[in-house]
Amino acid sequence: MKIAGRATRTIWPTGSTVRVIDQTRLPFEIADVELHTAADAARAIRTMIVRGAPLIGATAAYGMALAMKEDSSDANLANAGNVLNAARPTAVNLAWAVEEMRRVLAPLPLAQRAAAAFAKAAAICDADVAQCHAIGTHGHEVIKQLWRGKGSPSPFNILTHCNAGWLACVDWGTALAPIYMAHDAGLPIHVWVDETRPRNQGASLTAFELGAHGVPHTVIADNTGGHLMQRGRVDMAIVGSDRTTATGDVCNKIGTYLKALAAHAHGVPFYVALPSSTVDWSLADGMAIPIEERDEGEVTTITGRAAGGQVQQVRVVPETSKALNIAFDVTPARYVTGLITERGVCAASREGLLGLFPDHAKDAAE
Amino acid sequence: MKIAGRATRTIWPTGSTVRVIDQTRLPFEIADVELHTAADAARAIRTMIVRGAPLIGATAAYGMALAMKEDSSDANLANAGNVLNAARPTAVNLAWAVEEMRRVLAPLPLAQRAAAAFAKAAAICDADVAQCHAIGTHGHEVIKQLWRGKGSPSPFNILTHCNAGWLACVDWGTALAPIYMAHDAGLPIHVWVDETRPRNQGASLTAFELGAHGVPHTVIADNTGGHLMQRGRVDMAIVGSDRTTATGDVCNKIGTYLKALAAHAHGVPFYVALPSSTVDWSLADGMAIPIEERDEGEVTTITGRAAGGQVQQVRVVPETSKALNIAFDVTPARYVTGLITERGVCAASREGLLGLFPDHAKDAAE
Repeated sequence: MKIAGRATRTIWPTGSTVRVIDQTRLPFEIADVELHTAADAARAIRTMIVRGAPLIGATAAYGMALAMKEDSSDANLANAGNVLNAARPTAVNLAWAVEEMRRVLAPLPLAQRAAAAFAKAAAICDADVAQCHAIGTHGHEVIKQLWRGKGSPSPFNILTHCNAGWLACVDWGTALAPIYMAHDAGLPIHVWVDETRPRNQGASLTAFELGAHGVPHTVIADNTGGHLMQRGRVDMAIVGSDRTTATGDVCNKIGTYLKALAAHAHGVPFYVALPSSTVDWSLADGMAIPIEERDEGEVTTITGRAAGGQVQQVRVVPETSKALNIAFDVTPARYVTGLITERGVCAASREGLLGLFPDHAKDAAE
Repeated sequence: MKIAGRATRTIWPTGSTVRVIDQTRLPFEIADVELHTAADAARAIRTMIVRGAPLIGATAAYGMALAMKEDSSDANLANAGNVLNAARPTAVNLAWAVEEMRRVLAPLPLAQRAAAAFAKAAAICDADVAQCHAIGTHGHEVIKQLWRGKGSPSPFNILTHCNAGWLACVDWGTALAPIYMAHDAGLPIHVWVDETRPRNQGASLTAFELGAHGVPHTVIADNTGGHLMQRGRVDMAIVGSDRTTATGDVCNKIGTYLKALAAHAHGVPFYVALPSSTVDWSLADGMAIPIEERDEGEVTTITGRAAGGQVQQVRVVPETSKALNIAFDVTPARYVTGLITERGVCAASREGLLGLFPDHAKDAAE
């Protein structure tokens, strides 16, 4: 999407190196970092210079390419994969991208590996962009129908939670792709951006990327959405998904569930946008999804920019108080109006998902 | 309640002056401020050294006493009242306390006014303590019944939002009074403390006062309560109320409504503790309560303690993004399990409230 009018991706090759937006410096500074080696790529993943499952996968793919440029031996192919896989051990896209690169490169003569690796990494990026674009196209249609159904109000208010935008992907994003397309098509979109404590990805990343692209938006405390829905000030909600069951239960950033309950109480359409790669076909019940508990320091402290301009961390909880940091929650399918996937929109149910993905009829849990 | 083992109130006379806990320095520093004049008291109210409706009233009462000590003339009685009333113009308890002091002092000879004023201010404080104590007694009974009904689990988890504790009052608090009493009586209470963005009164004040008194507690992001209720980790919720309709709708800190919806979805008892002075008998519909919108700076910035020890404000939203800061929301009576008042516990309904307060049968809206 655009930053200051210029189309930008989160990761791009520059001849023999790769550059990524340094997301640790957002939203106050727009800078990029040059990656020269697989170790650089691993470090960027580990230190969250890049974050978001698709972007982590893309960075790992380019990390493998950087390794091949330096030394295309079998030993280095194995070694680079191990270094990258260790950067964030639980990221599914990371392991997938590394495996995909190994699969393509291993059969090739050493002299062809570097060029093939850069080409394959670029293809992985382009495939992600195409997938997000497809989600955006289908979601844009949903927005357009709802907007027309309400008599074309201006603004049309969409609430989102956390960051499922292009900064988490290579371009477009998942939950935000439909919003960008609707905005670009001239619909009078306004976005309520949940700040999304504790890590504040809404206030920092979503607000930044919407602002950079020129989409009108307003940041709100996470506590605010219920009131806004009660007062008719939310026309729809769109969020992302970290994991989706075969029956349509959605595991997403903590706090998603509270917004889904409020949307249900007030008849606000609540959509979840997701690439089908997040569907865990083996699961029938969202309650079975293991929920990550993260360091309490993310709750007890907040990072922001001090008056002097420097980025600073401050503690907001008494030194003697404990905190609990649960990273995700599960929204049961019955609260989800629809799933927006790269193949189209469906009901949040086994039948809905299998209608779009009949190839999974055998492995989809009931 | 106790700080470091010593029973403390938020305000106390010291011979000819008055001391208050400086709440702007909590939770990182426990300090008190000496008030010598009515102007000092007005400044303490204006700068939020003292906050919470009952404590603002108590401080105004003592402000009037300090004025009488200096100059007990009719002119100064009027003047001090005006100075104090101007400190936070919309605070109902402030105007009430000033008027109450004037009513008692005006008929008295000048020589008797100072002593009478200190005595009346002390009586206003004691009445608030007695009222909170009564709320605590009734609420403690509710907790005890629920705890026993669940088979006396340890811990018994109570979720609260914002700060309706003794720091907002003179002692005990409203929503926290039942918790202190249950804890003091030996029940294994554990409190989930919503941090309560944007002003973080939960993370700073509630966590501080529970910790100082020794009540086990854990601070959570406001997003977390839905998940905890879904997983059976919340046994009940108790919150305060800024304004309650004659029909039991409750206006409280923004975000209360989302927790009430989640409690309703999961059968978690959701209680509201309030002195009957917060009941607006003229209102039948919570949607008619005007909702305060505050400065967006409270959303775009957060104050905390930096590593060096100094208290610092940091910005957490891009400079170019707007924010909306809605301070309260309304929870319809149907989501409230019961109201805990100084006269007992009742259903959140006109019938329930009039059962305890039949004296309002004529003025209670339908």
